[in-house]
Amino acid sequence: MANWKNLDTLKSFEELKNAKKVSLKNVLAGEEGALRVGKYCIPMAEGMAYNFAAKAVDDEILSGLQKLADEQELAQKFQELYNGAIINTGEKRMVLHHLTRGQLGEDVFADGVNKREFYLNEVKKIADFANKVHSGEIANGNGEKFTTVVQVGIGGSDLGPRAMYLALENWAKVNGKFKMEAKFISNVDPDDASAVLASVDVAHSLFIIVSKSGTTLETLTNQSFVMDALEKAGLDSAKHLIAVTSETSPLAKSDAFLQAFFMDDYIGGRYSSTSGVGGAVLSLAFGPDVFAEFLKGAAEEDTLSKDADILKNPALLDALIGVYERNVLGFESTAILPYSQALNRFPAHLQQLDMESNGKSVNRFGEKLAYQTGPVIFGEPGTNGQHSFYQLLHQGTTIVPLQFIGFKNNQRGQDVVIKGSTSQEKLNANVAAQIVAFATGKDHENPNKSFDGERPSSIIIGESVNPATLGALLAHFENKVMFQGFLWNVNSFDQEGVQLGKVLATRVLAHETDGALKAYSAIFGL
Amino acid sequence: MANWKNLDTLKSFEELKNAKKVSLKNVLAGEEGALRVGKYCIPMAEGMAYNFAAKAVDDEILSGLQKLADEQELAQKFQELYNGAIINTGEKRMVLHHLTRGQLGEDVFADGVNKREFYLNEVKKIADFANKVHSGEIANGNGEKFTTVVQVGIGGSDLGPRAMYLALENWAKVNGKFKMEAKFISNVDPDDASAVLASVDVAHSLFIIVSKSGTTLETLTNQSFVMDALEKAGLDSAKHLIAVTSETSPLAKSDAFLQAFFMDDYIGGRYSSTSGVGGAVLSLAFGPDVFAEFLKGAAEEDTLSKDADILKNPALLDALIGVYERNVLGFESTAILPYSQALNRFPAHLQQLDMESNGKSVNRFGEKLAYQTGPVIFGEPGTNGQHSFYQLLHQGTTIVPLQFIGFKNNQRGQDVVIKGSTSQEKLNANVAAQIVAFATGKDHENPNKSFDGERPSSIIIGESVNPATLGALLAHFENKVMFQGFLWNVNSFDQEGVQLGKVLATRVLAHETDGALKAYSAIFGL
Repeated sequence: MANWKNLDTLKSFEELKNAKKVSLKNVLAGEEGALRVGKYCIPMAEGMAYNFAAKAVDDEILSGLQKLADEQELAQKFQELYNGAIINTGEKRMVLHHLTRGQLGEDVFADGVNKREFYLNEVKKIADFANKVHSGEIANGNGEKFTTVVQVGIGGSDLGPRAMYLALENWAKVNGKFKMEAKFISNVDPDDASAVLASVDVAHSLFIIVSKSGTTLETLTNQSFVMDALEKAGLDSAKHLIAVTSETSPLAKSDAFLQAFFMDDYIGGRYSSTSGVGGAVLSLAFGPDVFAEFLKGAAEEDTLSKDADILKNPALLDALIGVYERNVLGFESTAILPYSQALNRFPAHLQQLDMESNGKSVNRFGEKLAYQTGPVIFGEPGTNGQHSFYQLLHQGTTIVPLQFIGFKNNQRGQDVVIKGSTSQEKLNANVAAQIVAFATGKDHENPNKSFDGERPSSIIIGESVNPATLGALLAHFENKVMFQGFLWNVNSFDQEGVQLGKVLATRVLAHETDGALKAYSAIFGL
Repeated sequence: MANWKNLDTLKSFEELKNAKKVSLKNVLAGEEGALRVGKYCIPMAEGMAYNFAAKAVDDEILSGLQKLADEQELAQKFQELYNGAIINTGEKRMVLHHLTRGQLGEDVFADGVNKREFYLNEVKKIADFANKVHSGEIANGNGEKFTTVVQVGIGGSDLGPRAMYLALENWAKVNGKFKMEAKFISNVDPDDASAVLASVDVAHSLFIIVSKSGTTLETLTNQSFVMDALEKAGLDSAKHLIAVTSETSPLAKSDAFLQAFFMDDYIGGRYSSTSGVGGAVLSLAFGPDVFAEFLKGAAEEDTLSKDADILKNPALLDALIGVYERNVLGFESTAILPYSQALNRFPAHLQQLDMESNGKSVNRFGEKLAYQTGPVIFGEPGTNGQHSFYQLLHQGTTIVPLQFIGFKNNQRGQDVVIKGSTSQEKLNANVAAQIVAFATGKDHENPNKSFDGERPSSIIIGESVNPATLGALLAHFENKVMFQGFLWNVNSFDQEGVQLGKVLATRVLAHETDGALKAYSAIFGL
């Protein structure tokens, strides 16, 4: 059994704090700098690589990070997790999302079944269902094919699947894999459901209602919105709705649905993109084979994440460097900067994944922590961000560590040559240039045109965004966040911080308020 | 003439640092707390209000903030700005975006013309053009009406206009103002232009190429992409392209365009939504009268921003509280949380507006500053964010000040009643609940379910998102950022931090690299 200890009790962490700091200007200078770019780079799954040459580490700090990983028993903790230990201490649950994409260790049994088989079976049910929809065997009341799929969910049931859909939409269109258009309804603001419903042909739309508990107020409300729209169009809503939920939820056995697909309490919403939550919409939109490829990429990355050697385990190394930046260098936020339009909403997904997992002030035993945990995460795709918030990143008073993601090729294969280079070359020239500009800066006699540099970044590089690389990328960040949770000794798999707002909102709607809450409610006439 | 001083030289700032800190739990408790919600609220334009009851201020701190505003001569500096002083010291330019929507002070002359008249004339040219497009007088080569408008621009030529279009799209659809669908191309990633072009009917599309300098590489590249697509479709691209640029730019007199509309060097990209940059696309999409309403709302808010009394000037007060949070309380980031799906991309625009304006380390004279300036800005619409990053906001180790925005009514007027309340009521109950939950927290015997509270927030409340309230909202934030720039004594109107990356990217494309830059370029085969 692993020992669960606070970060600030570890000898290796004390040593790390005392290690000599690295100047990026120095280590990236000259031919030594060029060599470092090649050396500080480790393989990821699916031909990708994690390059950390522009992070403020050197061999001594890397050795300190390895000691930290060993002393905090990170590989062992991951092993216990995938073998079914109760890692989610708050809710006393196992954490099994890795099983949706592979068998990393021993068989795990719960609820009387082998969980890997359970998840595989749900994927198979989804695949069968999707194939029947695509063939027209499952059709609307008039026997016509469904053309559109609309996911109704919020948070983990929305951000991940939406980001994955957008990441693969264009890839699918140019590779003959585009089966159905997908749309998403999430917000309880009625304008969200109303606008999406007005934009689709409801008679040929299939709606996926996604809520693990079957009690998420936003999603149930939007389900009603959808059912109203179907009924107003004279359609039988039970022929248009499917559910992704847990077997014990009120949605599981409801007559309102054509079919229900299951997940369970061992998969958190923000880790559910590789479960039925992502599986239903992605299989319907692109076909089950595309979803299978996505799972394969994730599984390959998971396998790398088992390694105790930080130079063979990119998620582990990324996690350690992030904790070094947060708890030794004192940086408070991290920007995610994909140089790919396909990854447009990937930062929003990672924002949830990271901030909801590790935005905690107590350790896994409920004891208050005396150190910083999860950072603020934000980001937009490059080169757009360059013309927006990069000014602060380059010349602001706050240093923000950066996580670049880049690809050698685009998805659609269309390009133009202007001034001797393609758009793709310009895109990639920009990401290379930014890394160096942030790290090394540039002196200028006019201080307003001067750049201090010393802004650390890493870059993940791949051939192109496709189902397999996307799966690997997702697993990398999921595992990074998990390892950081282990390092901080927090429970990354509950989210008690969302409860108080829910309780108070319910009180407002029941008109059971007083004091400031009553006064704020009155502003809105509630 | 105003005195331009660093924040840390001000007596009032020293006093403010020593003022007794406010506990939100205390001041929002009981009936006093309820009264505070009514009292700490000041009017904005267009029936909106700025409520700061959940900010960590009291009458003593407010009095300190007034002294700070007076000592730093904020109202006088704004007056000098709108009367045409050289406020952009880096580029030695006037800052005139307020003139696009009103005459706040004296006539301002530059380039031999009255600038207010110049901007008005451009708006009129745009209105005439848009009316002719809508009537079919200006049509495609076959004499058919244009149905779609595509804005090609990046940064300030994209984020603001895109956020404004999305904010008004549904309002326009239900109010009979929807004239043309708008799409946007920004990223140099060729997948962006390729996908947008594949999604529109190019034969009936009008393209607006927006670049003040006429030399923005991304935009010129995407212009070529568009021209290629038009030519491949056998169309005369000059009949489909218009430009928004400066009179001295290469685009101004080019035969490639049907018509050019002008802005100038006195309007920064991130402040250009009320100029032709926003005007062309919004007038084409919704009609010139809608754009006029938008300008009217902005002008009304600008007028409020002239007041030296912080309790009559919401932008000024908002700015002062933000600086208090940044430089006295030490908070590093700010979240923008609109409870309105219409404001989906408004946070991305404010991220640029704020971080590009005030992410600076030197003062307006080029001297290094010894204090923190602009914060990191991020945000997503509520209630989506509640199911994502709010965990960290409630229970993380970092305190993030929050800027809520809420509206009594939705735009589309469609709603459902579930469990006794409408979606709109649920939306608003949530924002009221969140403000109180963040501020006052809640103790629990299980520390994992405990909330420390003391998370400050303000809320802007309006009737609904419409052209006038949107204009007022935009002007509020523009002026807030301006006042914060004055407080920090930085030049909020240049962006030298974007230059180094551009220079290095050009070098990569010219294969003139060595060392680390050459090594990073080689990764991408450049």
